[in-house]
Amino acid sequence: MELLFLGTGAGIPSKERNVTSIALKLLQEENHIWLFDCGEATQHQIMHTTIKPGKINKIFITHLHGDHLFGLPGFLSSRSFQGGKEGLTVYGPRGIKEFIQVSLAVSQAHLNYPLSFVEIADGMVFDEENFQVKCMKLDHGIDSYGFRIMQKDRPGELLVDKLKQLGIEPGPIYKQIKQNETVVLPEGSIIESKDFIGPAKRGKIITILGDTRSLPEAHGPFVTDSDILVHEATFNAISSEMAKNYFHSTTVQAAELSKQFNVKKLVLTHISSRYQAEDVPGLLQESREVFPNTEIASDFHTVHIS
Amino acid sequence: MELLFLGTGAGIPSKERNVTSIALKLLQEENHIWLFDCGEATQHQIMHTTIKPGKINKIFITHLHGDHLFGLPGFLSSRSFQGGKEGLTVYGPRGIKEFIQVSLAVSQAHLNYPLSFVEIADGMVFDEENFQVKCMKLDHGIDSYGFRIMQKDRPGELLVDKLKQLGIEPGPIYKQIKQNETVVLPEGSIIESKDFIGPAKRGKIITILGDTRSLPEAHGPFVTDSDILVHEATFNAISSEMAKNYFHSTTVQAAELSKQFNVKKLVLTHISSRYQAEDVPGLLQESREVFPNTEIASDFHTVHIS
Repeated sequence: MELLFLGTGAGIPSKERNVTSIALKLLQEENHIWLFDCGEATQHQIMHTTIKPGKINKIFITHLHGDHLFGLPGFLSSRSFQGGKEGLTVYGPRGIKEFIQVSLAVSQAHLNYPLSFVEIADGMVFDEENFQVKCMKLDHGIDSYGFRIMQKDRPGELLVDKLKQLGIEPGPIYKQIKQNETVVLPEGSIIESKDFIGPAKRGKIITILGDTRSLPEAHGPFVTDSDILVHEATFNAISSEMAKNYFHSTTVQAAELSKQFNVKKLVLTHISSRYQAEDVPGLLQESREVFPNTEIASDFHTVHIS
Repeated sequence: MELLFLGTGAGIPSKERNVTSIALKLLQEENHIWLFDCGEATQHQIMHTTIKPGKINKIFITHLHGDHLFGLPGFLSSRSFQGGKEGLTVYGPRGIKEFIQVSLAVSQAHLNYPLSFVEIADGMVFDEENFQVKCMKLDHGIDSYGFRIMQKDRPGELLVDKLKQLGIEPGPIYKQIKQNETVVLPEGSIIESKDFIGPAKRGKIITILGDTRSLPEAHGPFVTDSDILVHEATFNAISSEMAKNYFHSTTVQAAELSKQFNVKKLVLTHISSRYQAEDVPGLLQESREVFPNTEIASDFHTVHIS
């Protein structure tokens, strides 16, 4: 599982940072990739990665500002042109369906795959075999959502050495032990499967927030215990007044939320183009003073989640 | 006056060619720049040029396929963000207005400049002081237009040496000679202004066609006598059957049209991504065999018109 940042800028593209998009690569877990936001030229950024557009089967749009949205018609059209056949679902605030439908209709795009829309509201987005995704409305003027992606706990591994010590060799019996609480061995003795299975593997929690003002009381419970929190940091610490006025957050506000709510790692993105490459170490430092395990994403930055 | 090709690919972006957009720089003539088509990431391409988005006051969309259109909402939004105040008019086929209005409405973009739309049909697009623009429907399945941009003839220059030989020195009298048919000189003699003005400067004709099948009988009169013809060449000469099936043209079809209708220079663009950089000389050669004054545009290629 890994996050690949495709665009990490705010508002308008710059030479250093494209507008927002993040890929969550779930190739081992789901054989799919999920996209969070799709600013203009996201398909261009993807050309410089190993991502196959046909592998992307879910796109989550945090909010409908153009810098998070305007790459979607092009991406959807090109995915078809490039032979993507598998269905794709777009999750986003009300209006996402109209935007896509009008864009595809006027451009007479005929997609070779089924496209579905889910207009989201606070609460459960879906609960599937391996992942549950919830969303929460944030504070950005326009409806803007965060997504909490919760991998389900997976059963522990079979303790093969312990089984072998009892003379139970690999074979169909191993599958029975995995799937049943008690198993009768061929020679007649009964074993409790739990004695031969290691501890359950806790599922990872990745929380990706759309653009928002800092509202720790409201957002804290939603981000709590995240292995990774992706939070916008449009402004630096001293610009909190401006951040408030423009419905954005600062580096340190994101760090304080992470510290207070037991986040494991914070990744800052959506960096204003007022900050140049040489300003980034300062942004990082002021966040790390509050929450040491902070990173600032750059375009094509990868965060491994293990 | 110059053409700057911002995107010269077909259908989907590639690492070599972005999707279609062409800037016609009229800085001396109009102090403005006009854009023809606005594929996704046109604003990104513009970042790598000296073009100021605020100088673009007219955008012509040849047709509504996504690779000519999907950069428009982002460009319009960023132009406002970057401080563009001057009005802008978008000319395009029916549907352009709905696409832009829905895009700007769902993204809650509030432009700081007046935006107008003109949904075009065959005939005159406008007739202004320095330029007349006509359009013609082509043959591309979807409504696709060509634009013929005709600079108006400008009066010749004052023959200063000849005036000086007569003892008429520079001063307000020169303006009178420029503006009146006959002028009475201070000492009483009468001169015919035309004897002191050089030949009128013929206005340039630039014709930019949207995607189209080759239809020389229909398109010939529209492109005739162009100083520059920008023509799509999605396919090479031997792929004329494919070009017909997909409503596109070949290199040689564009060259034949140019030869037959007295075009001065042909610039080929909209090159399919099936052709790599090493294929371009071959495309160029087959066109030049028919029409020697051919160029193939690449991204950021400039054509000076003088």
